[in-house]
Amino acid sequence: MTGSALQIALAHHRAWTGKDLDLAMSYLADDVVCDAPAGRLTGVRAYREFLGPFAEHLLVRAEMIAAFGDDETALIMYDAETIPARSAPAAECVTVRDGKIVYNRFVFDRTPFEEFRRRQEQSRP
Amino acid sequence: MTGSALQIALAHHRAWTGKDLDLAMSYLADDVVCDAPAGRLTGVRAYREFLGPFAEHLLVRAEMIAAFGDDETALIMYDAETIPARSAPAAECVTVRDGKIVYNRFVFDRTPFEEFRRRQEQSRP
Repeated sequence: MTGSALQIALAHHRAWTGKDLDLAMSYLADDVVCDAPAGRLTGVRAYREFLGPFAEHLLVRAEMIAAFGDDETALIMYDAETIPARSAPAAECVTVRDGKIVYNRFVFDRTPFEEFRRRQEQSRP
Repeated sequence: MTGSALQIALAHHRAWTGKDLDLAMSYLADDVVCDAPAGRLTGVRAYREFLGPFAEHLLVRAEMIAAFGDDETALIMYDAETIPARSAPAAECVTVRDGKIVYNRFVFDRTPFEEFRRRQEQSRP
């Protein structure tokens, strides 16, 4: 086991948390599937529409808590400092095939982001 | 590395998802700290008050998605079928010292549980 899935998961993570969405998306298979808290996303475009605004507008910084993996699966947990919440931890379990992420199970608490969205809506004239 | 933290994390997981809270708590240090979505819990008693009602009243079954670890740290992700949500995945990153879980970073989406709680409150006369 070379842990190649973990290496790819970490490279993807570094790229998007560093706000390089083009590089981050290059680690995904075109037909990547992501099961996120709000439901299933299919394809790189949907994935980018999910992750891009978060990375570009809400994320301040991310810090890895733990990362493990083998050749096919990687499991990472990190904390994210965000505009809505100083601590918004997340976990991702990715499956890698032929050097690309083909599946991601993405777990985080939507609560602070929903509260932030509602506050923003309420503050609009 | 014997992966002893992972073995303890898995034994704890099997116990509480099997609704054996006494056994599950026996894997925790008395002064265990758990950073959960709603905030920090300290001590076995608080941990049990957090996990017990979920295990006993809301959990239907749990299924492991991935589990990794070494002697000190274990990272697991599992899906939980629950009364409020058919799929309520969670991730836990536990630190083990002297054979006991001393710390857990617990990540899950509170949204379906909050919605369930609100529906229950609304349905009361």
